[in-house]
Amino acid sequence: MIRLGRIGYVNMAPVFYRLDAEVEELVGVPTDLNRALLAGECDLAPISSIEYARNADRLRILPRLCVGSEGAVDSIQLVSRTPLEHIRTVAVTPESATSVVLTKVLLPEAEHVPLGEEAEATLLIGDAALKSAFEDPTPHHDLGRLWLERTGLPMVFAVWAAPDEPLPGLSELEEALVASVRLARAEPERLAHESSERYGYPAGFLARYFEKLRYSFGPRERAGLLTFLELARDVGELDAVPELRFVTAPAIA
Amino acid sequence: MIRLGRIGYVNMAPVFYRLDAEVEELVGVPTDLNRALLAGECDLAPISSIEYARNADRLRILPRLCVGSEGAVDSIQLVSRTPLEHIRTVAVTPESATSVVLTKVLLPEAEHVPLGEEAEATLLIGDAALKSAFEDPTPHHDLGRLWLERTGLPMVFAVWAAPDEPLPGLSELEEALVASVRLARAEPERLAHESSERYGYPAGFLARYFEKLRYSFGPRERAGLLTFLELARDVGELDAVPELRFVTAPAIA
Repeated sequence: MIRLGRIGYVNMAPVFYRLDAEVEELVGVPTDLNRALLAGECDLAPISSIEYARNADRLRILPRLCVGSEGAVDSIQLVSRTPLEHIRTVAVTPESATSVVLTKVLLPEAEHVPLGEEAEATLLIGDAALKSAFEDPTPHHDLGRLWLERTGLPMVFAVWAAPDEPLPGLSELEEALVASVRLARAEPERLAHESSERYGYPAGFLARYFEKLRYSFGPRERAGLLTFLELARDVGELDAVPELRFVTAPAIA
Repeated sequence: MIRLGRIGYVNMAPVFYRLDAEVEELVGVPTDLNRALLAGECDLAPISSIEYARNADRLRILPRLCVGSEGAVDSIQLVSRTPLEHIRTVAVTPESATSVVLTKVLLPEAEHVPLGEEAEATLLIGDAALKSAFEDPTPHHDLGRLWLERTGLPMVFAVWAAPDEPLPGLSELEEALVASVRLARAEPERLAHESSERYGYPAGFLARYFEKLRYSFGPRERAGLLTFLELARDVGELDAVPELRFVTAPAIA
């Protein structure tokens, strides 16, 4: 049975909405799943874009799924009283590798310091970002929106990766994950209600959040991912831009 | 003394933030102010874009101020379970003339019915739109975002209009209104805190809302306004697209 990684974040809800597949679920935070994937303890998991790129020689990705946004994503915010172009220090959370590199790409001049230290800007992700955007009047810069303004492309935060060895059933599992997203898109209210019960946010709020996310790994998302990896390389966060190597159906024996 | 119309909506807060001008304020809802302006009881007031166009032969507008957004505005939402392209009936509020015409422009096939009647979609504006977006999981389409996707331009919801007769001091008053917006932009946190006390929304929420609004009536906003008026004419909501006639400084006697 395929061992499928599942991150506990609410952005995963559409992919697992009505997943019709026999799998063994491995639930964890992203760093746990990255480790498990690279250690061979997991057969397929969502992995942050930059972490995928750093380990691309040992991984393959699903051709039809990603987690991205075209424009504002709400859950990644750079909070600062200093105008964007003058920010020289950013306090960053270690929680999200891709967001930290995205900050580096968008503000290459700014030095990063650990969260808690004095800085002109603070990078917030997830719940902390959403809460802050609602409560704190300090200017917030949505990194999904800044990325779109800079590149004209969607931002891809995560891809689905598997170890390099061919594994029977992976393409069928991808088909089942895609079908789950499709059904979630067709039943947005039921998805929002169920996710609201499970994750505790208001249903309307979650529906708006899911509307902003992109799960289809189309041509524009691929261009967005490659552009991000190129710019990450340019600021020294990646040695080289890897080729995107996809999982292909195993040859029939 | 100039009689200046003031709409009680929170989107006016930056324009009145630190207005340094001797004026007589006339506070009212938009339809009241439209009437007062056309009846000569008011010398300058914000007026909805379509209402201005319908009375353009009797009005002049300020060249540097508007109320617009580039993309999502949050406070104008079309709520519907039916996919956008299949919507055939929309229940509309009589509160906002421009939003109703914008809906007509974006969905020319859909018939409008009064709010309360059965319809496939509902147009919500202002508080009702914001509240609904947070609470209701039904799909919401932000009309500012749809407009940007359709035209690539900002949407202008209101302009500042004065009766056609030259009035001394109008350009100075415009300068004072522009200066107030500029100061509000420089002190976003104080603006948000003060507006939060006055209007009762959370400060962070208001700061995000003000970040989305555009008050400068620049070349792209003018193109957006003219495009809106052209499309409004095309769907039969306007007889002709008026020339934009601006207030000019009165000749020195």
